[in-house]
Amino acid sequence: MIPNLQIDPARLWATLMETAKIGGTPKGGIKRLTLSEEDRRVRDWFKTTCEGLGCAVHVDEVGNMFAVRPGRNDALPPIAMGSHLDTQPTGGKFDGVLGVLGAIEALRAMVAAGYETNAPIAIANWTNEEGSRFAPAMLCSGVHAGVFTPEFALSRQDRDGVSLGEALDTIGYRGDEKAGSRRFQAMFELHIEQGPILEDQGVMIGVVKGVQGMRWYEVTVRGQDAHTGATPMYLRRNALLGAARMIDRIDGIGQAHQGGVATVGLIENRPNSRNVIPGEVFFCVDLRHPDEAALQRMEDAFRAALPEVMDPLKLEFAERMIWNSPAVKFDEALIDCVRAGVAKSGLTSRDMASGAGHDAAYTARVMPTVMIFVPCAGGISHNEAESTTKEECAAGAQVLLNAVLEYDSRLAG
Amino acid sequence: MIPNLQIDPARLWATLMETAKIGGTPKGGIKRLTLSEEDRRVRDWFKTTCEGLGCAVHVDEVGNMFAVRPGRNDALPPIAMGSHLDTQPTGGKFDGVLGVLGAIEALRAMVAAGYETNAPIAIANWTNEEGSRFAPAMLCSGVHAGVFTPEFALSRQDRDGVSLGEALDTIGYRGDEKAGSRRFQAMFELHIEQGPILEDQGVMIGVVKGVQGMRWYEVTVRGQDAHTGATPMYLRRNALLGAARMIDRIDGIGQAHQGGVATVGLIENRPNSRNVIPGEVFFCVDLRHPDEAALQRMEDAFRAALPEVMDPLKLEFAERMIWNSPAVKFDEALIDCVRAGVAKSGLTSRDMASGAGHDAAYTARVMPTVMIFVPCAGGISHNEAESTTKEECAAGAQVLLNAVLEYDSRLAG
Repeated sequence: MIPNLQIDPARLWATLMETAKIGGTPKGGIKRLTLSEEDRRVRDWFKTTCEGLGCAVHVDEVGNMFAVRPGRNDALPPIAMGSHLDTQPTGGKFDGVLGVLGAIEALRAMVAAGYETNAPIAIANWTNEEGSRFAPAMLCSGVHAGVFTPEFALSRQDRDGVSLGEALDTIGYRGDEKAGSRRFQAMFELHIEQGPILEDQGVMIGVVKGVQGMRWYEVTVRGQDAHTGATPMYLRRNALLGAARMIDRIDGIGQAHQGGVATVGLIENRPNSRNVIPGEVFFCVDLRHPDEAALQRMEDAFRAALPEVMDPLKLEFAERMIWNSPAVKFDEALIDCVRAGVAKSGLTSRDMASGAGHDAAYTARVMPTVMIFVPCAGGISHNEAESTTKEECAAGAQVLLNAVLEYDSRLAG
Repeated sequence: MIPNLQIDPARLWATLMETAKIGGTPKGGIKRLTLSEEDRRVRDWFKTTCEGLGCAVHVDEVGNMFAVRPGRNDALPPIAMGSHLDTQPTGGKFDGVLGVLGAIEALRAMVAAGYETNAPIAIANWTNEEGSRFAPAMLCSGVHAGVFTPEFALSRQDRDGVSLGEALDTIGYRGDEKAGSRRFQAMFELHIEQGPILEDQGVMIGVVKGVQGMRWYEVTVRGQDAHTGATPMYLRRNALLGAARMIDRIDGIGQAHQGGVATVGLIENRPNSRNVIPGEVFFCVDLRHPDEAALQRMEDAFRAALPEVMDPLKLEFAERMIWNSPAVKFDEALIDCVRAGVAKSGLTSRDMASGAGHDAAYTARVMPTVMIFVPCAGGISHNEAESTTKEECAAGAQVLLNAVLEYDSRLAG
């Protein structure tokens, strides 16, 4: 029998607001760059709090923190929850933080009820998810997953030339545990959606089935600079016209592939003068889809559109893919536990894919992983205006608790 | 009877090449900014040369130069030819220069034949056509035409704070004649096309019936910045998509209005980041047509397209006209003289409109005016690569001579 444990919405909210003061900004956000003094303070708080809940707190060589509460059978690898406590320079109060503090609240509910799980329970705080101070993002969950070596991560430098390794030493969080050596049997990451779908549809919980595959392309279109007044329409080779038609076609590709998105976000027009027909345009294309086969079809459609648009306009073009991040599919058994957790809570939910990267996208390479989304107002994130309500945070933490207990109960069975 | 005078192609070419050394650049162009030391030298050459051809040379208060050769009836106002001898900072050898030197060649042909016209013949060299040193362009033909006051022109400053009046004093070309006081009964301006039409169609002479009307507009489109990955297609308000569709629509407006051109040359996309759906786009629209009524229809089509494009995309927009330069129609009697001059020469020709502004656009306000175009390679101008052949220069000068003699003969009749 799975106990009917309830998280405490007020306690979770109080914890969110209390820790938000560590790096809190006047506009209500958080500036807590990874491995800064503010990060040290929140890490110390995390360690103390988890130890107070009966956990042993371990730190690996790249600063990833793992708080582990024993279970009935400590031969079983722990079931992990968590996310990250670092923020953007003008970040909000919920991105990453909710995943760690929601996990603490779930653990508090177990402890308060005196409930002992079959497997140990762990809470992870991954180093440098944001990538704002040290590039790239999701760096140390990436190390854990074998995507990056520890040496690569430790040698990353911030703009002042300080390496990640030096920053770990400065705040005392270079641990002695070899990165990736600690094994978990599952990973549950609660996170705000960072998109507008749940709010728009009035749904409380996103059951995240995976992370979209993402491909980026750069396109250069070449025509001929010419005087806008002296060059008749039939003699033009207007590079901006070609780019404009591609922007429309690319949007159409997003519309035509259900579940996918397609965008031109960046464009540079040359010479960019009021009375000169543009001779060269550079733009970037961002295609995403949760399904790799569908993403490939989007790429095929994009590449087919280029000559269709450019040839009639007598324009030349060059195109190349500059980034390819394959789609991630989360673990079906864990997705099922989240669904069971939603059902038990009585909350509304819908399946979705994450449009952005998360630590979970990397951990999924080495352990069964799933994510749970809650709404954020207007889909706004990476912004001090980021806003998720007390009820939404509580809903997410309750589903997280339910899903972990469901998973743990299946171990026993 | 109109005499069958012939210009001397070799003499014209030699004069073009000789004076091109005054401010000549290593890349074969000319840097002869208005009222610079180089401009003084070419003005001195112009004065000496014209005096050698029997002209009196007059200078007005803004430096416009008028060389006048007497006719049989000096009670008649002079028939003027001419253009400008100043150039862009990296200008070519023909823009403006051909109109003055072609006029000198036409005069040389008359003098060599001992031919006396009915009316006096004048050659004008207008100050600061280019506008590179002192804005705006076509400044002192504008003063002559009453568009600008002499005080306005004289007070214009270059980037070093030197006024046009001071610059005139420095090179000794502030004349004592009141600007606009000298009257002419006609003005013929020979010029390179600065566009690609004549070359493309294999035609030697452009009979220029007028100058296109030009209207410029600024448009700002506002949507909503959002994450490219987390924001589904149906929730987007993509300002760049709206701008792209307008760029295509505006090109279509140019295509749909025969003789007109429509262009977006400048676009600024915000925030212009690879993974952010653009929230705001600014762009400039350039519409031109030789006929004001047709230009108004183009404007109406452009303004109608804005809500048609933006409303379905849930985008807001603001639009305003920032420049309106009405179409200029040249004098029918002078156009007829140019046609007669072409017929006599046996050259190919076509009617056309000037896409760019010229001194003639202003002089047309106060005297019957016409222009004659010859090809320039690739339509390239305002560039050291500007190229018109010896034969093309000669063809233009011959038609100029023929047209002036035709006009003069009609005075007698």
